[in-house]
Amino acid sequence: MLGKRQPEIYGRETLADVESMCRVEAERLGLAVEFAQSNHEGVLVDRIQAAREANSGIVINAGAYTHTSVALLDALNAAELPAIEVHLSNIYKRESFRHHSYISPAAVGVIAGLGTQGYLLALQALARLLAR
Amino acid sequence: MLGKRQPEIYGRETLADVESMCRVEAERLGLAVEFAQSNHEGVLVDRIQAAREANSGIVINAGAYTHTSVALLDALNAAELPAIEVHLSNIYKRESFRHHSYISPAAVGVIAGLGTQGYLLALQALARLLAR
Amino acid sequence: MLGKRQPEIYGRETLADVESMCRVEAERLGLAVEFAQSNHEGVLVDRIQAAREANSGIVINAGAYTHTSVALLDALNAAELPAIEVHLSNIYKRESFRHHSYISPAAVGVIAGLGTQGYLLALQALARLLAR
Amino acid sequence: MLGKRQPEIYGRETLADVESMCRVEAERLGLAVEFAQSNHEGVLVDRIQAAREANSGIVINAGAYTHTSVALLDALNAAELPAIEVHLSNIYKRESFRHHSYISPAAVGVIAGLGTQGYLLALQALARLLAR
Amino acid sequence: MLGKRQPEIYGRETLADVESMCRVEAERLGLAVEFAQSNHEGVLVDRIQAAREANSGIVINAGAYTHTSVALLDALNAAELPAIEVHLSNIYKRESFRHHSYISPAAVGVIAGLGTQGYLLALQALARLLAR
Amino acid sequence: MLGKRQPEIYGRETLADVESMCRVEAERLGLAVEFAQSNHEGVLVDRIQAAREANSGIVINAGAYTHTSVALLDALNAAELPAIEVHLSNIYKRESFRHHSYISPAAVGVIAGLGTQGYLLALQALARLLAR
Amino acid sequence: MLGKRQPEIYGRETLADVESMCRVEAERLGLAVEFAQSNHEGVLVDRIQAAREANSGIVINAGAYTHTSVALLDALNAAELPAIEVHLSNIYKRESFRHHSYISPAAVGVIAGLGTQGYLLALQALARLLAR
Amino acid sequence: MLGKRQPEIYGRETLADVESMCRVEAERLGLAVEFAQSNHEGVLVDRIQAAREANSGIVINAGAYTHTSVALLDALNAAELPAIEVHLSNIYKRESFRHHSYISPAAVGVIAGLGTQGYLLALQALARLLAR
Amino acid sequence: MLGKRQPEIYGRETLADVESMCRVEAERLGLAVEFAQSNHEGVLVDRIQAAREANSGIVINAGAYTHTSVALLDALNAAELPAIEVHLSNIYKRESFRHHSYISPAAVGVIAGLGTQGYLLALQALARLLAR
Amino acid sequence: MLGKRQPEIYGRETLADVESMCRVEAERLGLAVEFAQSNHEGVLVDRIQAAREANSGIVINAGAYTHTSVALLDALNAAELPAIEVHLSNIYKRESFRHHSYISPAAVGVIAGLGTQGYLLALQALARLLAR
Amino acid sequence: MLGKRQPEIYGRETLADVESMCRVEAERLGLAVEFAQSNHEGVLVDRIQAAREANSGIVINAGAYTHTSVALLDALNAAELPAIEVHLSNIYKRESFRHHSYISPAAVGVIAGLGTQGYLLALQALARLLAR
Amino acid sequence: MLGKRQPEIYGRETLADVESMCRVEAERLGLAVEFAQSNHEGVLVDRIQAAREANSGIVINAGAYTHTSVALLDALNAAELPAIEVHLSNIYKRESFRHHSYISPAAVGVIAGLGTQGYLLALQALARLLAR
Repeated sequence: MLGKRQPEIYGRETLADVESMCRVEAERLGLAVEFAQSNHEGVLVDRIQAAREANSGIVINAGAYTHTSVALLDALNAAELPAIEVHLSNIYKRESFRHHSYISPAAVGVIAGLGTQGYLLALQALARLLAR
Repeated sequence: MLGKRQPEIYGRETLADVESMCRVEAERLGLAVEFAQSNHEGVLVDRIQAAREANSGIVINAGAYTHTSVALLDALNAAELPAIEVHLSNIYKRESFRHHSYISPAAVGVIAGLGTQGYLLALQALARLLAR
Repeated sequence: MLGKRQPEIYGRETLADVESMCRVEAERLGLAVEFAQSNHEGVLVDRIQAAREANSGIVINAGAYTHTSVALLDALNAAELPAIEVHLSNIYKRESFRHHSYISPAAVGVIAGLGTQGYLLALQALARLLAR
Repeated sequence: MLGKRQPEIYGRETLADVESMCRVEAERLGLAVEFAQSNHEGVLVDRIQAAREANSGIVINAGAYTHTSVALLDALNAAELPAIEVHLSNIYKRESFRHHSYISPAAVGVIAGLGTQGYLLALQALARLLAR
Repeated sequence: MLGKRQPEIYGRETLADVESMCRVEAERLGLAVEFAQSNHEGVLVDRIQAAREANSGIVINAGAYTHTSVALLDALNAAELPAIEVHLSNIYKRESFRHHSYISPAAVGVIAGLGTQGYLLALQALARLLAR
Repeated sequence: MLGKRQPEIYGRETLADVESMCRVEAERLGLAVEFAQSNHEGVLVDRIQAAREANSGIVINAGAYTHTSVALLDALNAAELPAIEVHLSNIYKRESFRHHSYISPAAVGVIAGLGTQGYLLALQALARLLAR
Repeated sequence: MLGKRQPEIYGRETLADVESMCRVEAERLGLAVEFAQSNHEGVLVDRIQAAREANSGIVINAGAYTHTSVALLDALNAAELPAIEVHLSNIYKRESFRHHSYISPAAVGVIAGLGTQGYLLALQALARLLAR
Repeated sequence: MLGKRQPEIYGRETLADVESMCRVEAERLGLAVEFAQSNHEGVLVDRIQAAREANSGIVINAGAYTHTSVALLDALNAAELPAIEVHLSNIYKRESFRHHSYISPAAVGVIAGLGTQGYLLALQALARLLAR
Repeated sequence: MLGKRQPEIYGRETLADVESMCRVEAERLGLAVEFAQSNHEGVLVDRIQAAREANSGIVINAGAYTHTSVALLDALNAAELPAIEVHLSNIYKRESFRHHSYISPAAVGVIAGLGTQGYLLALQALARLLAR
Repeated sequence: MLGKRQPEIYGRETLADVESMCRVEAERLGLAVEFAQSNHEGVLVDRIQAAREANSGIVINAGAYTHTSVALLDALNAAELPAIEVHLSNIYKRESFRHHSYISPAAVGVIAGLGTQGYLLALQALARLLAR
Repeated sequence: MLGKRQPEIYGRETLADVESMCRVEAERLGLAVEFAQSNHEGVLVDRIQAAREANSGIVINAGAYTHTSVALLDALNAAELPAIEVHLSNIYKRESFRHHSYISPAAVGVIAGLGTQGYLLALQALARLLAR
Repeated sequence: MLGKRQPEIYGRETLADVESMCRVEAERLGLAVEFAQSNHEGVLVDRIQAAREANSGIVINAGAYTHTSVALLDALNAAELPAIEVHLSNIYKRESFRHHSYISPAAVGVIAGLGTQGYLLALQALARLLAR
């Protein structure tokens, strides 16, 4: 829904714009990047489990599931990969139930409120973690 | 105390290292940067108030005061400048009293857990906000 | 499971009965009506997102997800359509965790405890909202 | 105060308009209807107690007393009549103290947020309960 | 409503029965007794204020207002008379909001769950307090 | 009960003294003043509703109802008049349930703990608000 | 410790005085009475279990264990005898942890704050329950 | 992920090992056993609903959904089958949000912390329940 | 009290039945078993301390003390033996104060709701732990 | 920052304006007045301690420190002077963390929401307290 | 269990060592000292009650009962002797339920975290209190 | 303010008395001692940071900052020195907000309620820790 839904919160860039920006940045950083998007908690869990074998790190914006999903927390812990949690909006100035993230304890770090640029910064952070 | 205190949490770079890294990054981004560091809540409040006239944006790591200072929140709101909140450690996986930040509602965004690189990412975010 | 499961709470009419009743009432009100039912939170989210383009209003009984799903709240907010929340049982006299609905803030109104008639009343309310 | 007070919350119809609408709907449903309105919790309690002998069912909008009155709960329980709770506004998207109703456990069902139409829908629901 | 309402909770004796029993017991104890009953919190407050001049002690069953009325607490404190709080039912095994009494801190003692006999025991207790 | 009840909390001036003081101060400020006092929440609600047509501002000491009455909050909001909340005692150093006022959000300001002088200060504040 | 410990709370009568008073009252009521006193929660539990076979009813002042002992609650429930809970002091005006009694849900009723007279009133109440 | 993910918490046996162990034990107990595993809450709900017709009892380890899913609770209640809840780890010594299970109230019993042996014990318990 | 007290919760088998069943099962498992039962928290603590020297593992049903005893927790921790916590009833569907066990963090695992069979399953689990 | 920062909350008068208004009012009341302003909690504490010797009363607006400073509470208690707490805005209609003041228990009274006039009213109240 | 149980928390000295150290220190301070140790809350209560007559002061380490025993609080209050509360470990850095002591309000002071030396310091403090 | 402020809480000895007592005791223990006192949280933080290089241990009475300062906690953790927390009064019998200390988790132990003697006992404890 990105770019359509509540642009005053989430910005005007579409998912395609974001993917394109990320690809450019990833290339600059020497990373290969794969995208997954779903409204299904279970699909996200499956994808994170698959990452354990297939990927070296994770940039995750779990959207609404951030605040309700222990399954994502367990999946991230099981994946044993460096993960950066991203939120387009500053969740800490929204409704109080958005202040808590189940997945933050499984992430290396969190970037919130910086819009789609947050993904690019997360890629930089991930690149640095992987370079260690 | 940076670089000395609990390096497993805060990393091994000193404050001087961080300032130097930030200067390089700021220059790359076409920004001028000023530093302030204090253990005194009041000094931080004074500095933020001064920023209203003297600066265009704020990158702030309020350390322990993040969790206890309404005065910093009010100062940031009064400053009416874009602010990025940075934490070296991932405060969301530490003691529960560190999960709450009084100042997040006055910040554009938050970057936590990415060590000293967090400052560089914050400068990038600020550069983009100021370029709008 | 409607009509089978705990009829003392949910009544004896089946899902087919309800759909049939709703079609009749919708026709009387000059509305076209589409049905969707799923045990999958993600399917419900997908359907609400699709409604943004395909429908003029929403009557939603989110069942157990009412109490746990921020994703449905976000989907309803993103849909930007008038929505009426329906519950077959009076959730306010059941377990305390059923007293809270994540989706009520995204609904125009709520009808609870009136059994399957609740859907017909919701259609009336929706017809009036759409007629404004 | 209906129609005067905060019309953006409570609508522009006056109490007289509502009574007139309800009479028409009640007649259509074959019901006789009596009205009572008071700012006094005790008067409402008295009226509900009287209903035990004088009436077959109750449609109640207890206004602010919804959130603070155990006396109304006890009166409704003592009345042993089917009751429908109505709220003009969607109380679940207002201040948190309005999310809780003391009287919901004594009601068959709740209709909230549908403005004065809520009373008409409640009459329909009551008619159906009385027809059983 | 006594004797009619929910006799499994409140017993089958009517208010007249209780008054009669109390008169007999009061006479036995050498006390004169006056009765007041109201569904109106304000009437109860007025009566307690009047007691300050007119009576030597108070036996009070504040019913539902027990749990919601600070006004009764203030009236009892202002009356500066020995008061015994009575409840027909054992409020401590009912809904949790009935476990708290605003007026207990202004009472000498509390008798709950002993039905209408509670009034007689309260009179005995009051007689003893007044005899001191 | 003023002047009689717990003078160590509420002072020794009677209601008549207060009315007289207020009349003098009101006259000095060029204001006309009307008094209303009741132990009945509903009477207070009625009076506030009447104020909407009959008065330009409100000085209110809701006593015990301060802490329990949503009806007074709604009445004040509906009145749409500047209101000053007054408490004779400093409610913030008494029992914790007195620290919360339902009506403060509907008031311009609050004066507490200054005894009967609080009414005079409130009249000054109201005079200034009305002079704007 | 009765009669010695904090007489301003617990009165000046000794345990022997209380036993003697109770014997007289029990005799008047046609009841036989046995006493048990212990500082040991387990001894109290044993005694209540024994009562199941040996006694017809229970008057219990569990002292401090009132507020902390689930074992006493379970023992009383297992005893399946009418029980009256007595407290010498008015526990509802003491520290907040004394407001909650684990055993009240297993008692027919509660008498608090009436000093040693509370035992006599409890015997009366028990006599009446046994006479049913 | 069993056997791979955090073996210090979940043990080293794989899902295949567990299925094989369970088949052997079920055979010994004279039971037929079917397996279902999914990261999708909705799939688990569907499976439980299907069990109502197809199976006689349920052994369920709902993993992370234990702590967040009202839908599973409702599905188990609707299934009206004896269910045993199993957890590989002792959830009561992990994070506090894992101490609460939404589904325990719909289960006959709970076995936690005994690793994969828990499934075998659950089968024994189920066999006994079915033999009644 | 087992077998007598509330058989709908705790079953009809007596303590002797349970001991006998356990002896048979223990023998089958090659274990020697000793029993201890007490209504005294301190006796249970003493017994657990003695187990440190005298026994290899513990199966414990602490009854009501489960929910109130830190002393049992400390004793179990000090014993440094594998312990299995057993509850006859499913404590997670009873009063909320029974949902929390102080001793679970000191146990390897928990078995609840499976009646006296729970002891046999616990013995099996213990046998397996001791065989490692 | 007064007069510059968020004038919709704090008004447009500057600190100099307020000092000047206060001096005029103090003179009218026959009081001498000294001003202190600081962003440093410690400076405020020092100033209050100095007041013990140097001043007869205190008018204090502790700004953000109102909500976080036990040190100010202790300083005010140690000063043993009559103090009036002033807030420019009505803190009771702002964020919930502003509803609580640590210093109110050490103040005679509180004036909130009346803008800079609050200081003048506080001086009047102080003058009256000092005149006693 | 001292010296055996978890020496990293409680140290390696045995109870005999502690008693011997205390005797030496008591002698140095001119005090006679008696020891009591029990796993039974009731025995501790009995001992404290006996102290009222037999001793001049109390040094108490109530172990686990610190956090659960109102009976010990009441016993200490009834004893009316100066008491010093000692904990071997720093209870304020252990589980949150160990941060609260029921008995601290009945103690003059608290010494925690200083191991067995805490007893010696407590004796010094007691000696000074008794010398007043 | 020591010796002047509320002597019934803090005693009558002045800061100079305490320093003198401590010097004598330190000398007896073979320790050198430095004093620092400030109303400024930041000064205390600075001093603790300096201690890391300059001192071997810390005795700290953080006064009101005990209850509000995360900065002191972080400073003590960063200092990596043995620290003893001292309070003149027994904070556990004062207002509930004084029951919690942010700094206790960074201290070896806590001494509270023993007046100025607490400092001497803390020095003894520190001497023993440094002697290990």
